[in-house]
Amino acid sequence: MPLGERNGDKESRYCGVETDFSNDMPQLLEYSIKGGFDFVLATLVDPAYRPSLESSNNLKSGALPVAGSDLVLSPAKWSSHVVGKISSWIDLDSDDEILRRDSEICLKQEVAWASHLSLQACLLPVPKGQSCANYSRCVNQILQSSNNMQLWLRIPLRKHEDGDPMDDQSLGGDPIDSWETWNSFRLLCEHNSQLSVALDVLGSLPSTNSLGRWIGEPVRAAIIHTNSFLTNARGHPCLSKRHQKLLTQFFNHSVQVVISGGLAHPVSIKSLESATNDVNSDVGHPLRAYLYYIGYLYQKMDPLPEQELYELSYRDFLQSPLQPLMDNLEAQTYETFEKDTVKYLQYQRAVGKALLDRIPDEKASSVTSVLMVVGAGRGPLVRASLEAAKETGRTLKVYAVEKNPNAVITLHSLIKLEGWENIVTIVSSDMRHWDAPEKADILVSELLGSFGDNELSPECLDGALRFLKPDGISIPSSYTSFFQPITSTKLYNDVKAHKDLVHFETPYVVKLHKVARLAPCQPVFTFVHPEYSPSNDNQRYTKLKFEIPEDTGSTLVHGFAGYFDATLYKDVHLGIEPTMPTPNMFSWFPIFFPLRAPVCVRPGVPLEVHIWRCSGSTKVWYEWCVASPSSSPIHNSKGRSYWVGL
Amino acid sequence: MPLGERNGDKESRYCGVETDFSNDMPQLLEYSIKGGFDFVLATLVDPAYRPSLESSNNLKSGALPVAGSDLVLSPAKWSSHVVGKISSWIDLDSDDEILRRDSEICLKQEVAWASHLSLQACLLPVPKGQSCANYSRCVNQILQSSNNMQLWLRIPLRKHEDGDPMDDQSLGGDPIDSWETWNSFRLLCEHNSQLSVALDVLGSLPSTNSLGRWIGEPVRAAIIHTNSFLTNARGHPCLSKRHQKLLTQFFNHSVQVVISGGLAHPVSIKSLESATNDVNSDVGHPLRAYLYYIGYLYQKMDPLPEQELYELSYRDFLQSPLQPLMDNLEAQTYETFEKDTVKYLQYQRAVGKALLDRIPDEKASSVTSVLMVVGAGRGPLVRASLEAAKETGRTLKVYAVEKNPNAVITLHSLIKLEGWENIVTIVSSDMRHWDAPEKADILVSELLGSFGDNELSPECLDGALRFLKPDGISIPSSYTSFFQPITSTKLYNDVKAHKDLVHFETPYVVKLHKVARLAPCQPVFTFVHPEYSPSNDNQRYTKLKFEIPEDTGSTLVHGFAGYFDATLYKDVHLGIEPTMPTPNMFSWFPIFFPLRAPVCVRPGVPLEVHIWRCSGSTKVWYEWCVASPSSSPIHNSKGRSYWVGL
Repeated sequence: MPLGERNGDKESRYCGVETDFSNDMPQLLEYSIKGGFDFVLATLVDPAYRPSLESSNNLKSGALPVAGSDLVLSPAKWSSHVVGKISSWIDLDSDDEILRRDSEICLKQEVAWASHLSLQACLLPVPKGQSCANYSRCVNQILQSSNNMQLWLRIPLRKHEDGDPMDDQSLGGDPIDSWETWNSFRLLCEHNSQLSVALDVLGSLPSTNSLGRWIGEPVRAAIIHTNSFLTNARGHPCLSKRHQKLLTQFFNHSVQVVISGGLAHPVSIKSLESATNDVNSDVGHPLRAYLYYIGYLYQKMDPLPEQELYELSYRDFLQSPLQPLMDNLEAQTYETFEKDTVKYLQYQRAVGKALLDRIPDEKASSVTSVLMVVGAGRGPLVRASLEAAKETGRTLKVYAVEKNPNAVITLHSLIKLEGWENIVTIVSSDMRHWDAPEKADILVSELLGSFGDNELSPECLDGALRFLKPDGISIPSSYTSFFQPITSTKLYNDVKAHKDLVHFETPYVVKLHKVARLAPCQPVFTFVHPEYSPSNDNQRYTKLKFEIPEDTGSTLVHGFAGYFDATLYKDVHLGIEPTMPTPNMFSWFPIFFPLRAPVCVRPGVPLEVHIWRCSGSTKVWYEWCVASPSSSPIHNSKGRSYWVGL
Repeated sequence: MPLGERNGDKESRYCGVETDFSNDMPQLLEYSIKGGFDFVLATLVDPAYRPSLESSNNLKSGALPVAGSDLVLSPAKWSSHVVGKISSWIDLDSDDEILRRDSEICLKQEVAWASHLSLQACLLPVPKGQSCANYSRCVNQILQSSNNMQLWLRIPLRKHEDGDPMDDQSLGGDPIDSWETWNSFRLLCEHNSQLSVALDVLGSLPSTNSLGRWIGEPVRAAIIHTNSFLTNARGHPCLSKRHQKLLTQFFNHSVQVVISGGLAHPVSIKSLESATNDVNSDVGHPLRAYLYYIGYLYQKMDPLPEQELYELSYRDFLQSPLQPLMDNLEAQTYETFEKDTVKYLQYQRAVGKALLDRIPDEKASSVTSVLMVVGAGRGPLVRASLEAAKETGRTLKVYAVEKNPNAVITLHSLIKLEGWENIVTIVSSDMRHWDAPEKADILVSELLGSFGDNELSPECLDGALRFLKPDGISIPSSYTSFFQPITSTKLYNDVKAHKDLVHFETPYVVKLHKVARLAPCQPVFTFVHPEYSPSNDNQRYTKLKFEIPEDTGSTLVHGFAGYFDATLYKDVHLGIEPTMPTPNMFSWFPIFFPLRAPVCVRPGVPLEVHIWRCSGSTKVWYEWCVASPSSSPIHNSKGRSYWVGL
């Protein structure tokens, strides 16, 4: 039974329960499901079993002492309600060779058994101690087999911070930062996409920055021990504010919750009953109070805003950026962009302010301003400009310049339909080559990409500068791109799946979701229009030094998120930079610049990045690299993998 | 004119001279060559030239102010006697944008010009300051073009050590360790094989360990400034003992020497003349005394030992290890190995000692020992064993077991030829399946590979254990493999050139030469024969922690060199471990285990390596990984790339 419904969220969230070894699997499962849980995290093999003892006792029955044969449950039940828990005594990096060999044999036997049962996932026990090379090697061998089963590596959510007492020692070894163990494990297994994490959420949580790293990792489950719950005034289990916030983040990132441990809050069943008003409920399961509370947390989450709902299916989905200069957009694409009313309202405000600045009230009716929309598409900026003129009582003569002949057809019908024939002149031409009959007071364009200049706005507007009056205004008047290091195992793996260099040297437009943003954004390139400097050159080079907050711990940088902010006119801006995004605008997702090999950054070490905007006679491209803490290759040298055609 | 002849060395060593800019290239070249130099390191373009000044002065003649058109010298002269020196004022990482742009334009123009002249190499100026990302990017773009020209990056041979005064500040920026600059540069350029190093050898040298790193790097030239020479008692220039040793290493690794600077030792020409007895020499060149000295150093080097001469053509040449178990060796291969007299003498000594231990003098004539040669090949161990019996006066009955039917044919004729029919029985069988008619006193085998167990000696000898007497002797009685981290740009690039995973997960047999050995060897796996333990298992797992001496500085580990040492019997051993190799034995080169991505190790940080010997029903393979300072992928998981067939 999923954790109730959240407004608009299409995915259900489930809650499981960790159980002890039982010979009676059907009973165990029925009890748990009746108790309201969706699945069990169940030990598959008798914990007393050791391969080495079997052989020396000459008791080689050959049969693994499992918790129930494949026949005791239907295949569908095994697969949808049981996550296999691999024996927790397993220690593949022990100095005790017998234990190590037993562990290796047992791990392989249990995973093979789980695979035979078609389980969707197995939980691998917490790595003991700091080193996990042999454990990783065995898991990596298993991952090499063609099998779809997910392996969840259990990791206690723990990071030793200065002055922190180390608690909950029981749940594993003594790593200073458990993220390091995970990082080492997954690097040894080459970011295998079937390897993910199940986090043990303990009573005390590390710093918020350090928790943030996990959002970029493939966390599939959060295991919450009953000891980690507090008790509220009515004696019921509840979680601290920080725990609640963490759980909300987990819910937002499709992490399943598992309750573990015994009843630690002896709540009377009666009070629970009345608290939930659930008269049909089975009151038998001792952990039900915890499940109620988790369900309550999920249900009280704010509903997803409409825009987020609309963008749900785009989350972490890599798209190649548009090439509107080289290719002609399709009607469908125009249709989508034109729906972004917020964007055109900003343009309308900008044009209005510019008209008011340029034409004093007393000349409002006597002076006609020449406004040129360069890259008019199917006309939304023409409409916004005319609206602005109407609003401010100024008179406009509009040229709509568009290079796409298909869009020009639509423009013509629009103008006829709206009766703008006397105001708007349609020019079917590339703005870079148009021989304008007069000069413009205002040049309006929307040529920006997710990274600002990446759809070649600078080159296009340089071409249009010829027909702007010396005191004319360009809307936008400037734009700046931004860069930010991120962890995103999902995006890295999706790029890696292509198994070639080209995809690692291509920036992607993507709705970032399972992403850890490691440091504040920094500006990269700025372009100002009009730009009359004689040494004007649209090539750029910037060196950035990111300081990742020290309490984050070590991090793995998979690449960089790119954004932009544009000043349309004076205080009217437009953009997606995370600290000042234009609300409810959906025309741009961020852009992701991948790194061919993820870079590990230790606490206190700055991350130095270099990025170039280069141009040749037929194309513009970016090159990028990391120079510190260690040097990466130069990405996309000479635009070999990715470029934008001029 | 090469630096004279060294006994047996097939390659000539040349000496060049660094010159100032001159408009008269033919004169400059003739003067230098007459002075005894083989080539000039010549500035190609007027040092006063700056692209930005040209354009603002509207002096766009379009012609680069070069040191001489392509016509002033024949193409052959340009190409064989001139190394182009790129303008040293170039600073691509300057904060001054005009200087940076001038530098970029000029670098590209000069390299293009050098390329037009078909020069073999250009010298790139020393990177200014710590950061070299933009310089690397421009060089990387040049390297992406299809062109065979080598680019030598000039790097001062300097490493700041605690308490060291920093001298020779003039020759570049202020890097703490110039190797770091080089490392960063080449990582940014992805180990491009056309990018190499020209080292400025200064008056004071860093520690020997830190110098050692450069042997693993593609050093093409050593530029020695006249100021770095000392003055001997007779007023002649000479070099310190440490400089001499370094130069000897350079000569041994095909590094060319270039003299730079002015005359700093005013030696009378007369005394020079008499010192060299070279009556036909031109005495005009002021730097001739330095050239004489370099020539003298080269000529006084010890001649290459015969074995080194024989192995010259194998240096750094990657070979796939033999699979003698799965494949049958060819006559040619047997021929080569049988020539290794040292090896068979060691076997003879071992068999002799074993016979003396086993049969007391009084029983010498009455007792016949049964000796089995398993893997007899064409008979060299049969011969060695019979020699040992003769030498010790013991009586032998020999079985020669060989699975290769082609070798068995040769064995039969050998026995007829030698008249051993009554002593030697030939068995055409795989030792693992032979049904022996009696049990052996001594089992002799030579199944060892470069890494000891890598040709499956353990598996073969386990199979032969059935027919060894309980108190019988195995020769060898044990063997151990060894591991050592190395820098070798050459080997790494040769593996990388295959552009696939398989080659990065394969160990290669290779005569290591341009290799920096970063830490002492450590033992990996040991096998003992006979091994009667019931839990006997030939799978192995070892974790090694290498401590690279701190004064080495940072290092880049491209992989690991593997060796072995075998105890044949008691104190008679055989092996290639570098601290105790068997002299004059040539049957084994070391083995090289590559790393898919080189690992940078900072001073004081240990390098932790894990290596596994795994086996399945049909094959044996190794897996390996680095776990610290950062985790590499597990190499060769499940033997997917490399394995030895059983």
